Amino acid sequence: MTTKKRIIDAEKLTNFTIRALQKMGVPYEGARITADMLVLTDLRGVDSHGVARLASLYIKGLQEGRINPTPKPEISSQALATAVMDGDRGLGFVIGHQAMTEAIRRAETAGAGFVSVRNSTHFGASAVYAMMALEHDMIGISMTDATLAVAPPGSSKPGIGTNPLAVAVPTGNKPPFIFDMATSVVAIGKLEIARREGHSLPVGWVMDEDGLPITDPDKRVRGEGGLLPLGGTPTLRSYKGFGLAMVVEILCSVLAGEPATISRNSPEVRSPAGHFFGALNVASFSPLETFKKSMDEMLEATQNLPRLPGVEKVYVAGDYEAEIEKNRRANGIPLHPAVVSSLKDIAEELGVEYDL
Amino acid sequence: MTTKKRIIDAEKLTNFTIRALQKMGVPYEGARITADMLVLTDLRGVDSHGVARLASLYIKGLQEGRINPTPKPEISSQALATAVMDGDRGLGFVIGHQAMTEAIRRAETAGAGFVSVRNSTHFGASAVYAMMALEHDMIGISMTDATLAVAPPGSSKPGIGTNPLAVAVPTGNKPPFIFDMATSVVAIGKLEIARREGHSLPVGWVMDEDGLPITDPDKRVRGEGGLLPLGGTPTLRSYKGFGLAMVVEILCSVLAGEPATISRNSPEVRSPAGHFFGALNVASFSPLETFKKSMDEMLEATQNLPRLPGVEKVYVAGDYEAEIEKNRRANGIPLHPAVVSSLKDIAEELGVEYDL
Repeated sequence: MTTKKRIIDAEKLTNFTIRALQKMGVPYEGARITADMLVLTDLRGVDSHGVARLASLYIKGLQEGRINPTPKPEISSQALATAVMDGDRGLGFVIGHQAMTEAIRRAETAGAGFVSVRNSTHFGASAVYAMMALEHDMIGISMTDATLAVAPPGSSKPGIGTNPLAVAVPTGNKPPFIFDMATSVVAIGKLEIARREGHSLPVGWVMDEDGLPITDPDKRVRGEGGLLPLGGTPTLRSYKGFGLAMVVEILCSVLAGEPATISRNSPEVRSPAGHFFGALNVASFSPLETFKKSMDEMLEATQNLPRLPGVEKVYVAGDYEAEIEKNRRANGIPLHPAVVSSLKDIAEELGVEYDL
Repeated sequence: MTTKKRIIDAEKLTNFTIRALQKMGVPYEGARITADMLVLTDLRGVDSHGVARLASLYIKGLQEGRINPTPKPEISSQALATAVMDGDRGLGFVIGHQAMTEAIRRAETAGAGFVSVRNSTHFGASAVYAMMALEHDMIGISMTDATLAVAPPGSSKPGIGTNPLAVAVPTGNKPPFIFDMATSVVAIGKLEIARREGHSLPVGWVMDEDGLPITDPDKRVRGEGGLLPLGGTPTLRSYKGFGLAMVVEILCSVLAGEPATISRNSPEVRSPAGHFFGALNVASFSPLETFKKSMDEMLEATQNLPRLPGVEKVYVAGDYEAEIEKNRRANGIPLHPAVVSSLKDIAEELGVEYDL
């Protein structure tokens, strides 16, 4: 299979995605939010979490009735800084966007705002929600639970999801600090990329039911064995990645009034997703300009650290993605041929115009 | 050197610590808070962060004037859920206890409370502050910045501290979920333990200035080279441990109105510390009893996962420490002879009664 990538214009890709989602019954506003977030993810180089999954996760989820195209989410709140949302199984992007907006609104008055969400669906890359806080000069936080795929230290079977968390922090003149990590060594999307591109997996990403490394990306990883938590091995402190995954799980499921994924789910079943969003209003703590200046200085000092032999640049979170975004906004988004085919297939199947 | 441990009674150890701190000019209330937190840390088996450091960090810091025995901390607040505290270089335990109390108080009305602290000093183990939230049926969060010791991925020199974070979550019948991690592979205290006990360091904990492993715990780690961020290597995603350390740094320094440690510090100089405390009131999100029941079920299901060959138990955060605490409360705390000597030395130097 050729792996030569096709260069696709971001705006055309956005409009195509909107058309496909509308055809599935998603109203324009929700389709627009979803398309913007998916394409922003591709623009930032996170190829695992962008339109590569439009067909397999979102269109398919809508077709099979797991995702509700016209949800009526409900928000309940007991205190100024907190709320819980029931997502009515809407598209994760639509639900996540609304919940993060609510967290930001609460942080405007209370200084901090937190919203725990149950009964939503897959929301793409966590970073895009955390980033919504930036234009409000707030620190944004977002997390989601996920299907069981990661084996806790000592266990031979998945007991938790890759449960990612993201934090975005405003800066002055430097690109914003945007940090997004799965709490496993790698996200499942990285295995999808390795499969698509025919690479083997490094030792330390996935293990089999005996704890031995799996390096073949085609080997099943959702039954026995599992992805490894960040840290990888007990000696290198895999309990930390696992503990972080548990924290994400608690904030995204249990705090929203739901049982944790392990109590309601199996690796084979995709249940509704839970999320957690937070916003901290910088000016409620310290003067904004001082904060932004210190952020710039911290990032600059870090980038200027002496480098190990062979290293060209010390990166801080968001740097690398900002470089890619600049390039892709100017020159288009390179998509793997398998992804382009999946979009063509959608166009044909749904009867929407294909112009990419 | 013998490594046979001495068994010390927790109450006697607490009272000795109070006397030593009082002798250094710390008022009873602050000495009591500090002693309780240090001994609780030892009771929970975190030998790296308990009384082992009473002499070298706290008494010495008071003697050398870096720690203010009678601080007048100031709190300023711009919004219901947030505050900033200036710790007036008080003992980190005293300042941390007051700031966490403030976060909890704010969470009682706003649902969430966050306090960023500047100008404090070393506060021991993060977990003890997060745990303060438990009796209020809140989720507790605590973090601290630390002296530069960890080399960011690609750098040959420390650019950030081991910046730990802790989260404590209430449960029903199970021991609470208490998670505390340095964002480096290991905390500096683990190197101190290896040194004390004459063990070599596993590959992947510390590197030299060429990026090669350091396994000798006596080799200097605060100049060139450094501790590795959680993840260890770029392939196993050390940018994640580093990114988490940056998040902690931002919340503990920059958000409190201070420059980040890297902008004001060098590996050789110990500057004032910054902390960050948070509390989320469970009942402001969801019914408390449902939450606790789901927590118990999650922990139980995790502990019951099938195990890898040779593994006796799957642990969740807090389990292991709860087992040790039960044992040590009943039977006393085993202290390494080097730690016992350091306490005897204090007693003699300060002229306080030694009865351990």
